[in-house]
Amino acid sequence: MAEALDVPTHLTPEKADFSKALAWVDGEVVPLDQARIPVRDLGLMYADMTYDVVHTWRGGFFRLEEHLDRFLASCAGLRLDPGLDRAGLRRRLGDLVLRSGLSDTLVYFACTRGTAVPGTRDPARHVAHRFFATVTPLILRGQPAEMRRGLHAMVVADVPRIAAASVNPHWKNSHWGDFQRATFAAKDAGADVPILLAPDGSVAEAPGFNVVALLDGALVSPADNVLPGISCRTMFEIAAELGIPARYGRLMPEELRRAEEVFLTATSCGLFPVTRLDGAPVGAGVPGPVTARLLNTYYARKNAGWHITPAAAAAGQETTR
Amino acid sequence: MAEALDVPTHLTPEKADFSKALAWVDGEVVPLDQARIPVRDLGLMYADMTYDVVHTWRGGFFRLEEHLDRFLASCAGLRLDPGLDRAGLRRRLGDLVLRSGLSDTLVYFACTRGTAVPGTRDPARHVAHRFFATVTPLILRGQPAEMRRGLHAMVVADVPRIAAASVNPHWKNSHWGDFQRATFAAKDAGADVPILLAPDGSVAEAPGFNVVALLDGALVSPADNVLPGISCRTMFEIAAELGIPARYGRLMPEELRRAEEVFLTATSCGLFPVTRLDGAPVGAGVPGPVTARLLNTYYARKNAGWHITPAAAAAGQETTR
Repeated sequence: MAEALDVPTHLTPEKADFSKALAWVDGEVVPLDQARIPVRDLGLMYADMTYDVVHTWRGGFFRLEEHLDRFLASCAGLRLDPGLDRAGLRRRLGDLVLRSGLSDTLVYFACTRGTAVPGTRDPARHVAHRFFATVTPLILRGQPAEMRRGLHAMVVADVPRIAAASVNPHWKNSHWGDFQRATFAAKDAGADVPILLAPDGSVAEAPGFNVVALLDGALVSPADNVLPGISCRTMFEIAAELGIPARYGRLMPEELRRAEEVFLTATSCGLFPVTRLDGAPVGAGVPGPVTARLLNTYYARKNAGWHITPAAAAAGQETTR
Repeated sequence: MAEALDVPTHLTPEKADFSKALAWVDGEVVPLDQARIPVRDLGLMYADMTYDVVHTWRGGFFRLEEHLDRFLASCAGLRLDPGLDRAGLRRRLGDLVLRSGLSDTLVYFACTRGTAVPGTRDPARHVAHRFFATVTPLILRGQPAEMRRGLHAMVVADVPRIAAASVNPHWKNSHWGDFQRATFAAKDAGADVPILLAPDGSVAEAPGFNVVALLDGALVSPADNVLPGISCRTMFEIAAELGIPARYGRLMPEELRRAEEVFLTATSCGLFPVTRLDGAPVGAGVPGPVTARLLNTYYARKNAGWHITPAAAAAGQETTR
């Protein structure tokens, strides 16, 4: 029998108030539906950009500094200049959340190479990079019934994840062509989500998710060929508190198939149980006890303010409470 | 001594009248500098899009049907629906060029997966795809002095081209992270442009260019791991007329280094000579005689109307001449 999954039920597409969604773009705060960028932005033309996504929970950012760490590292690696340092980014994102009046949000922020210079393809020529950000109501992927059912995943072996030597996965990027192609393949075969392998045949990532397996009582998530996921790290920290061993390492698809439990991690859900893999049940075919404990502890911790930075503090304002 | 390169001199950034540039986006024709798309367009967020670029020469599209072939094949492969069939695309692009009043243009046209549906990453959910197009003054890459100097290229072996199994290069796409990374590496080393290898070590592409080598009197361009380039095909057709053998095949970097001549092909230049490779001269270190004959014949043919569709004919209007 599956353990109870204490996931919130109020953050659904139906209940989300998108009229409050805002964006900061080209120096202005505008309603999200007016937020646009030029069609000649190199982020669009050549996927020449980075981004990150942090969420707020009950009015506070979850692990804001780690998302800023990653964004700044991505910008440095890709030689992109958002025009804001860490303090400026923190204030900008905090201010945007406060202005929206929303408490549970997804905050997407990005830096592109800016608008194309006519007649050149030289990225070094593009000196005016473009930073923008959006704040939208947090919609939790995985309402309770969906979480109980879990995701049906499929290893799509013939669409390998883009090699790290080609596009560095540590620099969060918009190169999702492999993910989209594998998603169509998985859905064509009746699955919900693909799991992609690295060029060496080991497990890499699912689209926007890190993959975690419980193998012989220990959690394992791929060390290489993946974005260093902050939600995955969070689950590993919770696992340590709960006395569950967890490590980054090489994970082979055959190990995934014999795992006791499998789940995916992402900001939009914390984690999402995988209950079927390649048409066969994972473990008992329901979310397993370790998965449930991690998810329930995740929400309990967040509700208690763990790793939370109030939006007002990020914005540099005194809280009025 | 280098042969004369009869390239036009009037299509420079300085002479380009961008005030005439137009875009067709979301059902409207607007000046280019007002052409914007939502920041939540999946073409931006996840590089989930395709595009093509055709040019007009003296008021007529060059090889329009082949660009439409490729665009439609890319859309089909990526399951994108531009909302226009071939005739509709032809009319839309023709009309846009006519309205601009420009005769020598670059026409960029794209289809994205459209605006993100909140709370989902499922590409099959995005039913309203977005088609847009821009027309800008044609700026020829490679003015005569630049063409005579040629490009100094560098094989950047440690940044392989994204594998075809991950992102199909036949479907023209915006996944340029490898190209940009390799461009920075080449420029850091004092070269102008990188040449990327396929995962198997054979020559693939340069950023937006096909690579062609003259080896033992015959032209060779990579058959696999590349976009099927229309300018490359054009040069091969001209070569056939001139009695120069040309074939698609496997091209290794060491063959490139001992080639008599090397050039890159793209819509924005026809071809561009490569005069240095990895710091050493290619052949005599000046554009070679075959390169020059191909380029000069290319312009002579285009000036004579070869493969040209007048914009008015594309737009479905009778020409008034």
